[in-house]
Amino acid sequence: MPVTPHVEHHFTGSETVRDIVIGMSDGLTVPFALAAGLSGAVVSNSVIVTAGLAEIAAGSIAMGLGGYLAAKSDAEHYASERVREQLEVKEKPGAERAEVEEVFQAYGLAPEEIAPVVEGLARRPEAWVDFMMRYELGLEKPEPRRALISALTIAGSYVAGGFIPLAPYMVADRAGVAALSSVAVTLAALTTFGYIKGRFTGARPGRSALQTMLIGGIAASAAFAIARMVS
Amino acid sequence: MPVTPHVEHHFTGSETVRDIVIGMSDGLTVPFALAAGLSGAVVSNSVIVTAGLAEIAAGSIAMGLGGYLAAKSDAEHYASERVREQLEVKEKPGAERAEVEEVFQAYGLAPEEIAPVVEGLARRPEAWVDFMMRYELGLEKPEPRRALISALTIAGSYVAGGFIPLAPYMVADRAGVAALSSVAVTLAALTTFGYIKGRFTGARPGRSALQTMLIGGIAASAAFAIARMVS
Repeated sequence: MPVTPHVEHHFTGSETVRDIVIGMSDGLTVPFALAAGLSGAVVSNSVIVTAGLAEIAAGSIAMGLGGYLAAKSDAEHYASERVREQLEVKEKPGAERAEVEEVFQAYGLAPEEIAPVVEGLARRPEAWVDFMMRYELGLEKPEPRRALISALTIAGSYVAGGFIPLAPYMVADRAGVAALSSVAVTLAALTTFGYIKGRFTGARPGRSALQTMLIGGIAASAAFAIARMVS
Repeated sequence: MPVTPHVEHHFTGSETVRDIVIGMSDGLTVPFALAAGLSGAVVSNSVIVTAGLAEIAAGSIAMGLGGYLAAKSDAEHYASERVREQLEVKEKPGAERAEVEEVFQAYGLAPEEIAPVVEGLARRPEAWVDFMMRYELGLEKPEPRRALISALTIAGSYVAGGFIPLAPYMVADRAGVAALSSVAVTLAALTTFGYIKGRFTGARPGRSALQTMLIGGIAASAAFAIARMVS
């Protein structure tokens, strides 16, 4: 069913690093902005902590459980498409041959260059089906066992990230002190996290640090402005 | 730089449908759960509305701007990898040939079946580079102009989704009435949205409706329980 990420990916780090990045990006940003926004509405620290914890619960469940079910659905989608492809290879081999040819024609290859591969695949139906899944349909073989680990990693990273902006509101007595500490601590955390993320993902670390910090800062500023306006 | 979606995708609907689904899933779920959570902490409706609006601002910016910058970085990553691949095709054609052969060996093809394709690609360096980008590195050609439209669609859908759970708190006088109305309206919206999402994405609509509704319900219940505990 494919529910479905925003951006195509290609990650030089491991899948676990990727999951931590996904969870922590949002976990640092959204609870931070929510808390900053509420402090703009001059709400008490205890309300901010309550709202922040509720947001962390909601966000981590939406990301973790949503991602888990999406991955499960993708696995089922892959399995059903594979059955369909197996049937087509068996029942309409001519049409499937033409589809393999199209894959290579897109790269300007001549019929006589394509024919041996087509013949080779036609002799190996299972490999042919795998080839069609990947190169005609563009579907990657899912790893269903990873779905649960991935969901827990994302949710856990969201929670860990979310507690950073919230901690100052939990310990400080005065609202202003808590808000300023939260902004300082979280912007520093976003910058550090963006830098490390850049290192792991092959991007320029300095720019990644700046971008990550700016997204958090803009989200928090917008939330602050809106909360102040309506309150 | 690849920041990076949770789940592999393959979407039968258009890209715009996909972006609406991404934004609205979270937009319906997280503000809903936050509002339900805060109502469990017996906070006034006006605080719930303020927190909800701050969350909508934060969430939509984090998703939209974060996705936009990630797409831009992916496009740069693709461009730099392509330059590297062009250089390799020029300077180490032998190694690159071996890499093409490996792609097909994975499907059990024999050397004599693979050779014509390798020769054909070797005669067309630009097509060869494109082939390596897609089949060796697994990188899709990004569409940089789509990044902005996609970001705005996701952010807009998040905002539109977020106002559904919040509306009852904006119009109702009594907290209990608002909370119950919000739960009823949003669970109905999640069910409808899940059903339509299933239709568009090729999943079983009934199950998609149930899953989408359950994720929202679980997130809201968890937020409610946590908010009640800490308040």
